[in-house]
Amino acid sequence: MIKLSNFPFSTLKTAPKVSENRSTSLLLQGSYIRQVMAGAYEFLPIGYRVLKNIENIVREEMDRAGYHEMLMTILTPRELWEVADRWEIPEYFKVPAWGNSEYRISPTNEENVTNIMNEFIQSYKDLPTCVYHIQKKFRNEKRAKSGLLRGREFLMKDAYSFHRDIEDFDRFYESVKDVYLRIFDRLGLGADTYIADADGGAISDKNSHEFQVKLEIGEDTIYKCKKCGACQNDELVDEEKGFECIECTSKDFETFAASEVGNIFHLGTKYTKPFGISYLDENNKMVNHVEMGCYGIGVSRLMGVMAEYFMRDKGIAWPENVAPADYYIIVLGEENLEKAEELALDLEKTGKSVILDDRMGKKFGFGQKAGDCELWGIPNRIVISKKTLEQGGYEILRRGEKELIVKI
Amino acid sequence: MIKLSNFPFSTLKTAPKVSENRSTSLLLQGSYIRQVMAGAYEFLPIGYRVLKNIENIVREEMDRAGYHEMLMTILTPRELWEVADRWEIPEYFKVPAWGNSEYRISPTNEENVTNIMNEFIQSYKDLPTCVYHIQKKFRNEKRAKSGLLRGREFLMKDAYSFHRDIEDFDRFYESVKDVYLRIFDRLGLGADTYIADADGGAISDKNSHEFQVKLEIGEDTIYKCKKCGACQNDELVDEEKGFECIECTSKDFETFAASEVGNIFHLGTKYTKPFGISYLDENNKMVNHVEMGCYGIGVSRLMGVMAEYFMRDKGIAWPENVAPADYYIIVLGEENLEKAEELALDLEKTGKSVILDDRMGKKFGFGQKAGDCELWGIPNRIVISKKTLEQGGYEILRRGEKELIVKI
Repeated sequence: MIKLSNFPFSTLKTAPKVSENRSTSLLLQGSYIRQVMAGAYEFLPIGYRVLKNIENIVREEMDRAGYHEMLMTILTPRELWEVADRWEIPEYFKVPAWGNSEYRISPTNEENVTNIMNEFIQSYKDLPTCVYHIQKKFRNEKRAKSGLLRGREFLMKDAYSFHRDIEDFDRFYESVKDVYLRIFDRLGLGADTYIADADGGAISDKNSHEFQVKLEIGEDTIYKCKKCGACQNDELVDEEKGFECIECTSKDFETFAASEVGNIFHLGTKYTKPFGISYLDENNKMVNHVEMGCYGIGVSRLMGVMAEYFMRDKGIAWPENVAPADYYIIVLGEENLEKAEELALDLEKTGKSVILDDRMGKKFGFGQKAGDCELWGIPNRIVISKKTLEQGGYEILRRGEKELIVKI
Repeated sequence: MIKLSNFPFSTLKTAPKVSENRSTSLLLQGSYIRQVMAGAYEFLPIGYRVLKNIENIVREEMDRAGYHEMLMTILTPRELWEVADRWEIPEYFKVPAWGNSEYRISPTNEENVTNIMNEFIQSYKDLPTCVYHIQKKFRNEKRAKSGLLRGREFLMKDAYSFHRDIEDFDRFYESVKDVYLRIFDRLGLGADTYIADADGGAISDKNSHEFQVKLEIGEDTIYKCKKCGACQNDELVDEEKGFECIECTSKDFETFAASEVGNIFHLGTKYTKPFGISYLDENNKMVNHVEMGCYGIGVSRLMGVMAEYFMRDKGIAWPENVAPADYYIIVLGEENLEKAEELALDLEKTGKSVILDDRMGKKFGFGQKAGDCELWGIPNRIVISKKTLEQGGYEILRRGEKELIVKI
């Protein structure tokens, strides 16, 4: 239970001015997060609860799909990055160490994971396999901005799969789409999440898809075919010829702004070849062709997108499974504290989490308390006061419903 | 459920030769961890389960004590480190970025946390307070060795408390000792964990204590007073005058080797002064003296110490609450797979975690399977075979007990 009377991370009186997007202002005002420098944010207790809830939903669905969780290092040696010729990328940090050695704090983990799996994939029985981890990543961004949407340091779920052949890869790739859609569904984004064909860029020549959430402030433009509904990122639209649907060749489209929350790539043998992954097949023959895919969800970015998506006038209406707490109890009057604590403990016994607003004094009237509850997007608000007790109990307001007196 | 038939992270046939300590060999042989370079380890699925179990016990006890969990950044700007004059420390990494800017990947978080709390501690009502996080830390170690015991990258729980005066600090400091002892108790280390007076070094001039686990390979020497039982690190023993108990002045002592698993420090105003933390007291008067303490537990190091402490001939006998799984099911004979899976699902329904050793073929006889179960230290081993089914069920071997046939 968080008792606000002894919780230093109070909300700020006014929203800090942030040019990019209003949800970042709300996240800062609600002391969810705090900027230590451009592109690097601390998650304060209220914000960290939200982040962990999102992270756990991602983890649950990855585990349910049978992918193996591990934890790779952040520090990696230079030699690893030279194998696939990615040491010299200015957006990837280099970290000088003793002598002439240099490390990298990982911006992504294709090299590292391929190097690990090279040791463990030995037999055809080890394939296909998919491993993932959830950890911080780092980018040397020239101009980091947009709050949690684009950072120098961010929390990422990255997964990597390994396959005997392209057919097996393709089957698996399709199944990841379902896992991802399930995640975004559970996070309440389902109705506005689109899978869009995307340019694989330097990484992929074949499959690459983005999961895009329709959002006014979105930095991407999605072209949606009016005939078959297929989506594609505007990078794929030929500037001269204009839009033509990849699926049905229709030229009829609509566009909308969207924000990327996930992406999946076919990597082919870009990493498995230079690292020399091989395995023994059914006939004890060494095979040195392994297909690889990678699958990302920016967990801290997702929190930023959700803040924007669920933003209301005076707060962020987080879905119940992500909110910083299940219940927010407003106590009015010192003499009702005991009753409020009892109720909080009862709720905790049923597995619910509670923020008890037991702050007293002139500055902490109903307005301030109700405001914090709204800013933090707690789905159930309870008021205990002389008035409610006279009516026999406490008042409960569930998001989207009317206040209701519940007898104690 | 982990099904070993499709789990690439199999154990290694032989223990890699590691000069430092045998538990590191076992951790490598069991594919708990894998070294990417000296002092930097990946946690593979089996090892990550152990690490997370330890981490969660630490978290539960920190939460129970009412400390607030947050997540600070790893990247921090140079300016932050200049405030308390700690930018130029060769064991702390510097990370060049665009232009002339330089960051640090945090080796510890006194600066960062003081900077944050400076914004939020405003009133005497905000004190005392204690915040913590569990995250990777980084040290530019010249010669990293000893497996998980001393790394360039390691997982740490670091907590920081803030107080109005030294009396309040002292009270709190004593209470942290209880929280820590409870953690080490729950991890099965209680009987051999000692609190030792220690040299605060550059950080602390007053209180500093280490939590030391008695261990043959321990890198510290603890002096224990034979009269009153008080312990101190040998750094505190005067080389010329010899041992004299800090508590009772007795000169009668015994010594033992031990490994540090936690430390607590009085920081005084070393950080709060330069960052200028102040608050309003009951009379609305600004007070600019805040006492600070810090409290660390090296979570990945703790896993290394536990590996050494619970090491047996052929594996690591992890306590139940830390083991990679509750049950290890050995299936002998393809025709018994279905029964084994049923049992595994039944166990999972009761909230237990299961490793199903469904590997078939000549290479995977009872010996190999039982060996992996032992190397991974799973507390309950189940065998399902033609023989056990003829006896009416399966054989269960709980650690420290005799095999027993359980009817299905």
